[in-house]
Amino acid sequence: MNAAKEAPFAKKSYEIPATMKAWVLGDPGQLALVQKPVPQPGPAEVLIRIDAIAVCGTDLEIIYKGLPAMIEGGLPFNKNFTPGHEYMGTVVKLGSSVDEYAIGDRVTVEVHNGCGRCERCREGMYTSCLNYGKNYGDVNKGHRANGFTTDGAFAEYIVNNINTLAHVPPDMSDEEATLIVTAGTAMYGLDSMGGLIAGQSVVVIGPGPIGLMGVAVAKALGASEVILTGTRDNRLEIGRRLGADHTVNVTREDAVAKVREYTNGGAHYVLECSGGATAVNDAALMLKRGGRICLAAFTDKPVLVDIAALVRNNITLFGIRGEGKGATHRAASLMAQKRFDAKIIHTHTFSLDEVPTAIKYARERTDDAIKVVVKISR
Amino acid sequence: MNAAKEAPFAKKSYEIPATMKAWVLGDPGQLALVQKPVPQPGPAEVLIRIDAIAVCGTDLEIIYKGLPAMIEGGLPFNKNFTPGHEYMGTVVKLGSSVDEYAIGDRVTVEVHNGCGRCERCREGMYTSCLNYGKNYGDVNKGHRANGFTTDGAFAEYIVNNINTLAHVPPDMSDEEATLIVTAGTAMYGLDSMGGLIAGQSVVVIGPGPIGLMGVAVAKALGASEVILTGTRDNRLEIGRRLGADHTVNVTREDAVAKVREYTNGGAHYVLECSGGATAVNDAALMLKRGGRICLAAFTDKPVLVDIAALVRNNITLFGIRGEGKGATHRAASLMAQKRFDAKIIHTHTFSLDEVPTAIKYARERTDDAIKVVVKISR
Amino acid sequence: MNAAKEAPFAKKSYEIPATMKAWVLGDPGQLALVQKPVPQPGPAEVLIRIDAIAVCGTDLEIIYKGLPAMIEGGLPFNKNFTPGHEYMGTVVKLGSSVDEYAIGDRVTVEVHNGCGRCERCREGMYTSCLNYGKNYGDVNKGHRANGFTTDGAFAEYIVNNINTLAHVPPDMSDEEATLIVTAGTAMYGLDSMGGLIAGQSVVVIGPGPIGLMGVAVAKALGASEVILTGTRDNRLEIGRRLGADHTVNVTREDAVAKVREYTNGGAHYVLECSGGATAVNDAALMLKRGGRICLAAFTDKPVLVDIAALVRNNITLFGIRGEGKGATHRAASLMAQKRFDAKIIHTHTFSLDEVPTAIKYARERTDDAIKVVVKISR
Amino acid sequence: MNAAKEAPFAKKSYEIPATMKAWVLGDPGQLALVQKPVPQPGPAEVLIRIDAIAVCGTDLEIIYKGLPAMIEGGLPFNKNFTPGHEYMGTVVKLGSSVDEYAIGDRVTVEVHNGCGRCERCREGMYTSCLNYGKNYGDVNKGHRANGFTTDGAFAEYIVNNINTLAHVPPDMSDEEATLIVTAGTAMYGLDSMGGLIAGQSVVVIGPGPIGLMGVAVAKALGASEVILTGTRDNRLEIGRRLGADHTVNVTREDAVAKVREYTNGGAHYVLECSGGATAVNDAALMLKRGGRICLAAFTDKPVLVDIAALVRNNITLFGIRGEGKGATHRAASLMAQKRFDAKIIHTHTFSLDEVPTAIKYARERTDDAIKVVVKISR
Repeated sequence: MNAAKEAPFAKKSYEIPATMKAWVLGDPGQLALVQKPVPQPGPAEVLIRIDAIAVCGTDLEIIYKGLPAMIEGGLPFNKNFTPGHEYMGTVVKLGSSVDEYAIGDRVTVEVHNGCGRCERCREGMYTSCLNYGKNYGDVNKGHRANGFTTDGAFAEYIVNNINTLAHVPPDMSDEEATLIVTAGTAMYGLDSMGGLIAGQSVVVIGPGPIGLMGVAVAKALGASEVILTGTRDNRLEIGRRLGADHTVNVTREDAVAKVREYTNGGAHYVLECSGGATAVNDAALMLKRGGRICLAAFTDKPVLVDIAALVRNNITLFGIRGEGKGATHRAASLMAQKRFDAKIIHTHTFSLDEVPTAIKYARERTDDAIKVVVKISR
Repeated sequence: MNAAKEAPFAKKSYEIPATMKAWVLGDPGQLALVQKPVPQPGPAEVLIRIDAIAVCGTDLEIIYKGLPAMIEGGLPFNKNFTPGHEYMGTVVKLGSSVDEYAIGDRVTVEVHNGCGRCERCREGMYTSCLNYGKNYGDVNKGHRANGFTTDGAFAEYIVNNINTLAHVPPDMSDEEATLIVTAGTAMYGLDSMGGLIAGQSVVVIGPGPIGLMGVAVAKALGASEVILTGTRDNRLEIGRRLGADHTVNVTREDAVAKVREYTNGGAHYVLECSGGATAVNDAALMLKRGGRICLAAFTDKPVLVDIAALVRNNITLFGIRGEGKGATHRAASLMAQKRFDAKIIHTHTFSLDEVPTAIKYARERTDDAIKVVVKISR
Repeated sequence: MNAAKEAPFAKKSYEIPATMKAWVLGDPGQLALVQKPVPQPGPAEVLIRIDAIAVCGTDLEIIYKGLPAMIEGGLPFNKNFTPGHEYMGTVVKLGSSVDEYAIGDRVTVEVHNGCGRCERCREGMYTSCLNYGKNYGDVNKGHRANGFTTDGAFAEYIVNNINTLAHVPPDMSDEEATLIVTAGTAMYGLDSMGGLIAGQSVVVIGPGPIGLMGVAVAKALGASEVILTGTRDNRLEIGRRLGADHTVNVTREDAVAKVREYTNGGAHYVLECSGGATAVNDAALMLKRGGRICLAAFTDKPVLVDIAALVRNNITLFGIRGEGKGATHRAASLMAQKRFDAKIIHTHTFSLDEVPTAIKYARERTDDAIKVVVKISR
Repeated sequence: MNAAKEAPFAKKSYEIPATMKAWVLGDPGQLALVQKPVPQPGPAEVLIRIDAIAVCGTDLEIIYKGLPAMIEGGLPFNKNFTPGHEYMGTVVKLGSSVDEYAIGDRVTVEVHNGCGRCERCREGMYTSCLNYGKNYGDVNKGHRANGFTTDGAFAEYIVNNINTLAHVPPDMSDEEATLIVTAGTAMYGLDSMGGLIAGQSVVVIGPGPIGLMGVAVAKALGASEVILTGTRDNRLEIGRRLGADHTVNVTREDAVAKVREYTNGGAHYVLECSGGATAVNDAALMLKRGGRICLAAFTDKPVLVDIAALVRNNITLFGIRGEGKGATHRAASLMAQKRFDAKIIHTHTFSLDEVPTAIKYARERTDDAIKVVVKISR
């Protein structure tokens, strides 16, 4: 049975209200629950009834600092803007020309809907769209990044371009489905470094959500050895459950030395997910000559980088923006095949009314929170 | 006429003396002219009578600081070591099994002869050979890097593995032929960034020899626009003669702003050849989102790098070691086809006896020296 | 001066009539000149006043056999369909959201406007769009292929998506600009085979327009040797003028033997543009082991292929559809830089009223016709 | 514990006899058991005591037809030649300079030891070595292909270059280890087509050993859906056990129609392992536009191929020779990680004295034989 196409038990029509609950951002850190009109899908778009939303570290950046959201006219504060970009839900209305999805389909999302007309979109690099944020005014190029430049998901309904959707298998929970985009980012990082991961060694620096999904995806693709480094033993233990062959607590051990030992002289790939000040230099030293680093995290400030180490060792660094090149679909497939249990990183659940609490838990890592999910029950 | 195969006017045999003149490195900066035995070629090797040697910036590093040469037991000082790695000459003796080259062939060289048995060599990345420097003792893996880890070319004869040779066309001067390896490094940099250069914009930072050859190769491959940035007007002018569409003197103009103007919003590629402290950050700002940087130079000290700019803009950095992946052959072909006039960067010529003077000119950029060549006349 | 942006002498507005002259296809081979409404550009589209149209071999296929055009409901006959797809003109009206082009811009075109929403378009392979031909009805995905599935260019006006446009430099004639798309197909073929063409040997089989542009582009990218094979000496001579180092008249010489001789044992790449019955097998024999073939032509009927030769020699074949991956822009850049003189293949010019004669010349190769261009003077 | 490095229970020295039992090929189909000198390892080589050898279909070609072995002077008959190339064993003697392997290491092999000095070897394509078969005489380039051009493994001892070795994990049986090279060929095929297999659909045509390993590797890498087509239900059933999501018996069902149904309109990749007369055309029809075919099998005679289908649909075909680009190591890693159970395809075991019977079983598929292994017990 092809659930995506038939969805036999899904409702075939949904009553859609005129307005909905939505959290909007006021001053930095201030969210208010308001009533907003339910948006309407245009061509190649669908209306989604949101069923679950995960809190991402970037949400916290947007809510507290306004970055990296790029809303017309500057920062997103006091613009009636709704944040939230890691969500899933149910298709309840189709825009014109849509037959790729049907009413009742359960779907999860990725962030970037490229304009489809700039040089980067034309070459398949839609997360690097050169018309980022241009979805307004006379030169509306149709770019969308829900939760960044267009309204996000701490709300009851949202509009998505079909390019940003992936089907959710029937036996996957709403909560787990919100984690697909995180796994997709990790997959994009591994893809960017070359893709031939089986039988190659992968170091993941930083056991945050992307790092932990990086461990899981690398292992699912056959990497050997997979090594996770970090500072918290409980996070490293979760990494082991997700497939890490080795973990290194950098507060007690020399990560570079341990990696070189575990990999018999140097790793093939490093997926840097920590944003640590020494991460790039550490990564260069962990690698065999000719190795590759994917940068999936960064800090606010510039860091000292030993360029000589990169040149002398023929090292390539891949900065990655979002979850490009269909990686979300590929990650979704691995999760549908149950190649790893992403649910392990889902630690807390709140209701839509409790969004501020959910955000507080995520921000303060209350009770060892990793992924905090807002579940909208009806 | 296929010169490589026929070489009809070449002598068919050469009288090879038992000893030869060779410069050897004593203390840092000290070179002495001595008599050494002429080396003998082994399997897959040839003996070359050296006809011309160019001085490279890396020679200066080796002679004055000992780096990046990696001689067994540490620095190259007082080990009877002969530096020099940008040279050309005439094949005068064949090691066993060699039929790729004939006695009398004029050849130029690249540096790295990989071991052929490590993981990187097996995948074609021989400049990243994991057995670098292992050409001695019980675990002699046969790696050679003449002028770095094995004796170099400020001498009358040298042994080269055939993997490091390329034929010199009959109508190319000895002096010009020494520049092929420099063009090969620039070619490897452009290849590394993707190779589809025609009709794409390339910025070259730093009008040293590699940067100037980068301009020439990029233009020969059809790049448009080619922009060269630097601090010296005379060097920038040479860049224009080699094909730069635009030049920017960074002492007077804002390079990032000018590049963005000339490229209508951002370049496709940056070839960084300056080793400047702000070069990586400047490069990131010069690029379109999704752009690529090749690092072909570096400074002694770590530099502050804005990692966030790399991640947010999906930028890839390629550190390149040497002149890999057959790039030297490809550069040699462009020069044989007279696609650019490398001779423009050859400014001074000295004899073998004058090596210290040649090195002094190169080091002090005496009389605007760019490429200083030692020509051995007989 | 950036002509594309300023176009200072271009008219800023154009009077657009309600109807226009257009040739429409009746029964196979039957064209009639009619009045049609001038079409209107939608979002991301422009209206172009057509200034010149070249006749392509595929036009003849469509006009006489109906293939490979795929019009809804079957063959294109008697559907008021206007053929013609190699054209250039002047932008006279902008659809909504367009600021990439301005009124008065001279532009040339490529064929495929992908839907932007299928899997292939999302990965940058828009000529392989999975919604090919779907630009009608309730599931209008917006795909266009002017002259194939949407009205073409033997007419006074046409609508193009901006994704299919490239600027024409001010010093390039209208006639030459119609040849950019042909050079773009050759460029896509060379790109597909790997792109690192400089210093590598390229054989072009078949001196038709794509083959001749293949010679020119390969040489412009630094290929060496470039070898052209064919049956007509005059065409081979044109190939020499466009850069072929060697030509082989297969009616007199053994092409495989000559290629192996000229390339010292086998070529790196073969661009097959003949559609000949033995072309694939010949190509496999012309190559070094590990070589690559691009298929840019085909015959009506299946041909016998020696699969064993492909497997034993690790040969890759790239079938190419159209001119993908931005190749048209890259070819346009080479032509703007005057790297080769495409005008050599333009042999005949007719007026819009003479379209049937133009097609007859192209079909019958009257008077050694290569590229026949219809020029619309006003 | 790193078994490869320590091998704590392995013997540290082995008594090596002067002569050994070896099967040699007389006239086509005639094998005789003789005494031969035990060969001696040269630099970068080891002597292996053979523990198990699998019979490959290519062995049958060589033994009965002489092809594709390319022995100097023509066919391999009556040259004292020992066939057999899918084997594993124990390192019992090291040639000079070897420290990558130790006495007592259990190793399995791949076929091609490239010369390391031709253009293809230098770019990492050692299975396409341009000096194939040159391991003799004055121009001995050191190429080896044991069982093809140098003595093979139906014997007690053999010499291998270290480039052709991979470690066997301690908990893997000798018999299973002989299957690694088969999985390596399948891996090379999948790698060649792009490597991003997770979440993509893969059709395998032909459930022979390579096809079955292709199913297993594709599934291990996360492919979805994996579809196997063939004519024998028992083989298809084995494919299901190795991970095929769907199987199609082409004697009862239309394979193209079923694939298009299972893949919702066309597959991403086809791995052709049947050598069937219609396989390439079927593959083209099974694919989405823009899809890719790997040719891992071929027939004796040319087959009719619809080139138009390849061109119109932008299809790429990858002929693959052997198991290149380190694929054997990557396959070995998947097997060491127990990602699939290769042992399923091992059906019969014989002793060294029974080689003719083993070959007969393999040739006649006696008792549904898939992989027949010769085990040498001591």
